[in-house]
Amino acid sequence: MKRIAIIGLGVIGASIGMALRSSCPELEIWGSDTDPLTVERALEMEAINGALAPGDVSGCDVVFIATPLRIVPGVLRDIRDLLQPGAIVTDVGSVKQWVMEQFGEILPSHVTAIGGHPLAGSDRSGITGADQYLLQNAVYVLTPAEGVDSSQVKKLRELLNRTGAQVMLSTPREQDQMVSLVSHLPHIVAASLMNNLQPHPGALPLAAGGLRDTTRIAASNPELWEDILILNRGAVAAQIRSLIRHLQLYEQALEQNQGETLRRYLAEAQQLRKTLRTGRLNLVNNADITAIVQDKPGIIGTLGAIMGEAGININDIQIMGVREENEGSVRLGVPLTQAGAAVQKLKENGIRASTRD
Amino acid sequence: MKRIAIIGLGVIGASIGMALRSSCPELEIWGSDTDPLTVERALEMEAINGALAPGDVSGCDVVFIATPLRIVPGVLRDIRDLLQPGAIVTDVGSVKQWVMEQFGEILPSHVTAIGGHPLAGSDRSGITGADQYLLQNAVYVLTPAEGVDSSQVKKLRELLNRTGAQVMLSTPREQDQMVSLVSHLPHIVAASLMNNLQPHPGALPLAAGGLRDTTRIAASNPELWEDILILNRGAVAAQIRSLIRHLQLYEQALEQNQGETLRRYLAEAQQLRKTLRTGRLNLVNNADITAIVQDKPGIIGTLGAIMGEAGININDIQIMGVREENEGSVRLGVPLTQAGAAVQKLKENGIRASTRD
Repeated sequence: MKRIAIIGLGVIGASIGMALRSSCPELEIWGSDTDPLTVERALEMEAINGALAPGDVSGCDVVFIATPLRIVPGVLRDIRDLLQPGAIVTDVGSVKQWVMEQFGEILPSHVTAIGGHPLAGSDRSGITGADQYLLQNAVYVLTPAEGVDSSQVKKLRELLNRTGAQVMLSTPREQDQMVSLVSHLPHIVAASLMNNLQPHPGALPLAAGGLRDTTRIAASNPELWEDILILNRGAVAAQIRSLIRHLQLYEQALEQNQGETLRRYLAEAQQLRKTLRTGRLNLVNNADITAIVQDKPGIIGTLGAIMGEAGININDIQIMGVREENEGSVRLGVPLTQAGAAVQKLKENGIRASTRD
Repeated sequence: MKRIAIIGLGVIGASIGMALRSSCPELEIWGSDTDPLTVERALEMEAINGALAPGDVSGCDVVFIATPLRIVPGVLRDIRDLLQPGAIVTDVGSVKQWVMEQFGEILPSHVTAIGGHPLAGSDRSGITGADQYLLQNAVYVLTPAEGVDSSQVKKLRELLNRTGAQVMLSTPREQDQMVSLVSHLPHIVAASLMNNLQPHPGALPLAAGGLRDTTRIAASNPELWEDILILNRGAVAAQIRSLIRHLQLYEQALEQNQGETLRRYLAEAQQLRKTLRTGRLNLVNNADITAIVQDKPGIIGTLGAIMGEAGININDIQIMGVREENEGSVRLGVPLTQAGAAVQKLKENGIRASTRD
């Protein structure tokens, strides 16, 4: 493998480029985008080695199509005549049945079509949201076309492993149903919560973390999501109906003042939620430390230096709340085995600190 | 004002204590909890000056009842005979009509009942989730009983201002409706999403940030939420029905393949979501910087020291993704006016850095 093409340098395309450029210096990564400024930015950010002339995928071993879904068929038509025999064509869209249909209709039989769906994203759309580590530990679903040579799947899988992604295989249909459950339905729910709030602007100042979290994804690009949802509409509509049935159970329990029934539903939800991995990193062996510090320039450096001198790596850090002209508290995540030492070191340096559990 | 009682030293009670002890050293803060270990911990954490004997609120100017809602009537009965004339009794529950009814029925007429609801919380329940800065910039709704002396409301308001909370006044009915919209309904939605996932455990590995955020609050304590939801059941049931109507609109648009309609709903939701303040701190004048650094002990200290030497305060910091034995990227929030200088300083120190927008 020598040459990779990335068509579309948004969050995902540019992040794949950045990860591959950094982990596979032996490869040439070529990229294109409809926006010339984005290509320029991608060169600056070291997401690509060079700009790909539109559609010119000749000599490329793997072609990533990382454009919005609706553009995929057009891109396939642009590139099909220049694809070399044995080239792998893959995409990054969250809907796979429809994409595999496009692959089947448009691509020549001498190339290998493997659908792809990295479960990663950013609040920021476009290349500004790209990150070399975006795919790190992210699940990356591959849906090979039927009858695909397994050595081709292996080739793509190994390439993706270099980005830090965790590859799993699925059929297009299965993946679309799973994604409707864990991604498309939550998206519609987040948006519906905001739609439902629209006639009540006075309630917004009371919104705390609960609403903020449940509706965060409602801020995403509507055009992008229109495509995703429409292209997976059968599965998504079925899941909306299923969710409505659950909501009606809650409504009945409330109307009939059935606290126990309500608690049972909530407890079942809680139990399942607790099994959900809650971050890309496995921080199970981490301990949280709270340090109370003056809010002034250099204080993060002081904390970091104290930990650094003691050979303790800070895996996670968060500024919790800061008062003007006063103190703030900082949460530090450190390896569990070093938590005691970390607190002691901070105290030796006159900083109030405690483990949080 | 001299003596404050806090009954119930969970997240909210202990956080109020910590904030008041730190900002009002002239006050005596007394606290009680059904769990003696919690009282001990509260003393250690400087949340209270001393342990309150059960029900002994004699001489207290303000009594915070920070217990689970279902215990509130029992607490009121325990304390009513020892409340001094003019004492203010307040609570921290998210439901206010029901609490005000309990106040009216149980409390003597010579005390002032003012319902309270701080819009703040923590993922951690109990005193381990308490934080001196939890209430900082959090909205704190007060619902005075009808006919309450406004100087009493002012007194409580001024006390709460010392915790950093932003006090707003409302009627119990209004507050309960607003809270059903921004808190209770999102809670049921988060739980329903998990209930809906229960028959499909295979989909969980595909869950990314979207599901994680929308369902975070489903991990909360079911007993606590049973009470909250049951005590506000009329308003919550009405909001579930309203949300179902919105979901049905989405379902119809999908079934009928109406992309434009779908996009319009999503765009309306997006627009409103963008007006939601997304954090407790006003970080509008902040810029984000990404620094690519080696993942090793001391690196946070190095970043902090570079910023500190340049007199630049780090307002926000996040470790984005870390590879073992490799590099990671760190996001730094700094004042907008200093972003250019910050990037330059980092580069002078051999650290790859860029502003993210």
